[in-house]
Amino acid sequence: MSPSDHRPGTLLNGSEAFPHRHLTGIAGLQPHEIMFLLDEAEQWVEANKERGRLSDRLTGLTQINAFFENSTRTLLSFEIAGKRLGADVVNMHAGQSSVKKGETLIDTAVTLNAMRADVIVIRHGSSGAVQLIADKVDCPVLNAGDGWHEHPTQALLDALTIRRRRGAIAGQRVVICGDILHSRVARSNILALTALAAEVRVVAPSTLMPAEVERMGVTPFSDFDEALEGADVVMMLRLQNERMSGGFIPSTREFHMRYGLTPERLARAKPDALVMHPGPMNRGVEITSSVADDRERSAITEQVAMGVAVRMACLDVLTRHERGVEGWA
Amino acid sequence: MSPSDHRPGTLLNGSEAFPHRHLTGIAGLQPHEIMFLLDEAEQWVEANKERGRLSDRLTGLTQINAFFENSTRTLLSFEIAGKRLGADVVNMHAGQSSVKKGETLIDTAVTLNAMRADVIVIRHGSSGAVQLIADKVDCPVLNAGDGWHEHPTQALLDALTIRRRRGAIAGQRVVICGDILHSRVARSNILALTALAAEVRVVAPSTLMPAEVERMGVTPFSDFDEALEGADVVMMLRLQNERMSGGFIPSTREFHMRYGLTPERLARAKPDALVMHPGPMNRGVEITSSVADDRERSAITEQVAMGVAVRMACLDVLTRHERGVEGWA
Amino acid sequence: MSPSDHRPGTLLNGSEAFPHRHLTGIAGLQPHEIMFLLDEAEQWVEANKERGRLSDRLTGLTQINAFFENSTRTLLSFEIAGKRLGADVVNMHAGQSSVKKGETLIDTAVTLNAMRADVIVIRHGSSGAVQLIADKVDCPVLNAGDGWHEHPTQALLDALTIRRRRGAIAGQRVVICGDILHSRVARSNILALTALAAEVRVVAPSTLMPAEVERMGVTPFSDFDEALEGADVVMMLRLQNERMSGGFIPSTREFHMRYGLTPERLARAKPDALVMHPGPMNRGVEITSSVADDRERSAITEQVAMGVAVRMACLDVLTRHERGVEGWA
Repeated sequence: MSPSDHRPGTLLNGSEAFPHRHLTGIAGLQPHEIMFLLDEAEQWVEANKERGRLSDRLTGLTQINAFFENSTRTLLSFEIAGKRLGADVVNMHAGQSSVKKGETLIDTAVTLNAMRADVIVIRHGSSGAVQLIADKVDCPVLNAGDGWHEHPTQALLDALTIRRRRGAIAGQRVVICGDILHSRVARSNILALTALAAEVRVVAPSTLMPAEVERMGVTPFSDFDEALEGADVVMMLRLQNERMSGGFIPSTREFHMRYGLTPERLARAKPDALVMHPGPMNRGVEITSSVADDRERSAITEQVAMGVAVRMACLDVLTRHERGVEGWA
Repeated sequence: MSPSDHRPGTLLNGSEAFPHRHLTGIAGLQPHEIMFLLDEAEQWVEANKERGRLSDRLTGLTQINAFFENSTRTLLSFEIAGKRLGADVVNMHAGQSSVKKGETLIDTAVTLNAMRADVIVIRHGSSGAVQLIADKVDCPVLNAGDGWHEHPTQALLDALTIRRRRGAIAGQRVVICGDILHSRVARSNILALTALAAEVRVVAPSTLMPAEVERMGVTPFSDFDEALEGADVVMMLRLQNERMSGGFIPSTREFHMRYGLTPERLARAKPDALVMHPGPMNRGVEITSSVADDRERSAITEQVAMGVAVRMACLDVLTRHERGVEGWA
Repeated sequence: MSPSDHRPGTLLNGSEAFPHRHLTGIAGLQPHEIMFLLDEAEQWVEANKERGRLSDRLTGLTQINAFFENSTRTLLSFEIAGKRLGADVVNMHAGQSSVKKGETLIDTAVTLNAMRADVIVIRHGSSGAVQLIADKVDCPVLNAGDGWHEHPTQALLDALTIRRRRGAIAGQRVVICGDILHSRVARSNILALTALAAEVRVVAPSTLMPAEVERMGVTPFSDFDEALEGADVVMMLRLQNERMSGGFIPSTREFHMRYGLTPERLARAKPDALVMHPGPMNRGVEITSSVADDRERSAITEQVAMGVAVRMACLDVLTRHERGVEGWA
């Protein structure tokens, strides 16, 4: 890993290192800004291994997790991240929400803002919903996944995992396989990894491959075996339940045959290639258990740990301006 | 605003200013007691504009929000209020509740009490349920809305909004329009505003107007335009989904024609009349978007902010006795 | 009460007093280990009567309550217990969970672990699920009820209630009545009470009595009246809704006639016999209101209070090793 690969952001002071108010997506971020967030996350990776209150940086701040779509992992991860920084974390679940009463999304946003949220984390089923809210509130907004659009903290935690396990991101051959078309995880990862000079290959059946995906700087494959040649990282996507029947794929069995990651298939990648999955996994569909549980090759558990660290970094960095941190006020 | 309008409570010391154990409704409160709560809320309005833990007054106290009816806004508001005062806030949602298992409400109350709740906030679908619980527990109980009965913190936040925006409550002509019959918001507001010497007019179709409403000290109107003449404040009620079809109103379109607040209709009120709505709004039904979003006239967002402040004041005041605050023990 | 009945654990130092990493059940615990947990709980019984933050022992630790089955009381009790010790408590509800997305239980466990939970409290509908998770994580696991298997903190709180109200557990005649077959409460109580040398009688219709229950060291009865002769404690079980119809019992009315606790029936027990119920109660089914509400005899409310204390003790003791408490590291 070259020094420039690891710490380019340290040359910039304070808010120059990350001049954005919100984190609505990876799109729009400079490579050094992405690297800055990864560098910031490193301290929390180490701190999370220790017991005891990690930090009081967000003490007295109100973090609202507004989840209009169910999610266990991401919600837990953001809740734990906020509490470890000392924030007052409040969850708003869709099931309880005024949205069901016909309230507009903007009215919900304005309401959360009027209660003086200090940072709002949003998951929503519609692409662009997070930006809509960000435009209406006075505090930083963090996108925890919106429709088919973006899931930026997932891309950041994946990048951090790759950097730590492979030593660098630039030059790595990363194969992303699955439902590329509907996946915000794929989209944010493509944006982050290409920005950081990885070589990205995407694999999907033609029904699940976006048109003109080459424009995103990636190489599309329909043959998984071919794409895996020389891969440093194999990133499997979750096959959403709603795709498992109907017109997109013939059957989950057929899907597994052609796009499931098996030990035989993995042998085509580099001998030390890393296996990743954002979870939750459909074992036996997109990934075989023996691959998922291979401690040498699989980074799936590490991805979860990196998730908490990356979210702590994002919550910390985005609230520096309002907390009056020197260089950020 | 006259001094007597603003701070009548300060002449009384400690618990004499607010000698009630619970806040189950506005009914039973003296005008100076209502004013005392509004005066107490003022400090939190200012404090909420700042970042950082506002207070440790409720540190170590357990606040249970027992919500037997769904509510995003009110639950969030009480949760944020409690956490800003340092309380350990625990939410009990109806969906998870033993009530579904056939437990009586009183058994639930006794259970919460046995866990040593220090303050219980209750929302329930049945009128009187909150009083039933208050009678059975050893700690203060706050009504967050019960059936068609009362929603006292809503009336307090509305009164605070009016006082801050209009300078006084006494003498203000307040027009409340919508489903007066089924609205606990209307009921609590009528009680508070008449106690504070406002002139209250209520407007509803005959099917949604309570019989003998004059007895509450208000003037009923069926014609919204007529009621609006010279109004200082126009308070719109939310049309509940369950009223939108069936026998109460012919159609939402018809309702909007006769009882929706439009710019044309608002022109009948005073030029600087304030527009209020408890939220969530049905835009295009009870209120037109251009009116709701008029920054000069609409206080709808400010109402939300006042809600947090008023709830902080209530949580603080009601727990003073058990916290052994001087003059309250 | 003899001293040996009360404080046998104090002869052992540190982790020798309770050398277990998890609390998955009462089975496997030595009598002095059960007594040690009861002794530890005593301090929290007293402390819970006071206001104000009780302890900072768990400050900075992340307690995840992973409830795959709905439960108001037990979840509230564990949440309050953790917060009173200063923990960051995070709830994971089944409804939001990845489990619904087809994730395996072990993957969920590994995920919670990777976020660095410091203690995990689990309720699950399947017997043995808690042990499965305990085997996969690096932190202590507390069983909050799994299938028909065990509910150890319920047995501990019941034992504490008996010890405090009757002065001792050894030699007490305890009658447990209801659906013994499907009850994890019954099972854990039988294990705890027989270990502590109580005389345990179990009463159930033959369809709800486990085969060879005598092997657990208890005496089975089909006649409730007969079993009650000379009883010191009468512990009623909740009749689960799903048993109320179908083949197990003819009708709830019939069940009440033969197995409901009435004042007449209670008269067969000792004059000062204690009445217990884990809640929530089906009044008029397994217990008559006049018995449940008899302040002299009923310990039902006290059981709830003991629950918080016992859970605080368990959370404290189980995390001592990782907190590096002297004698436990």
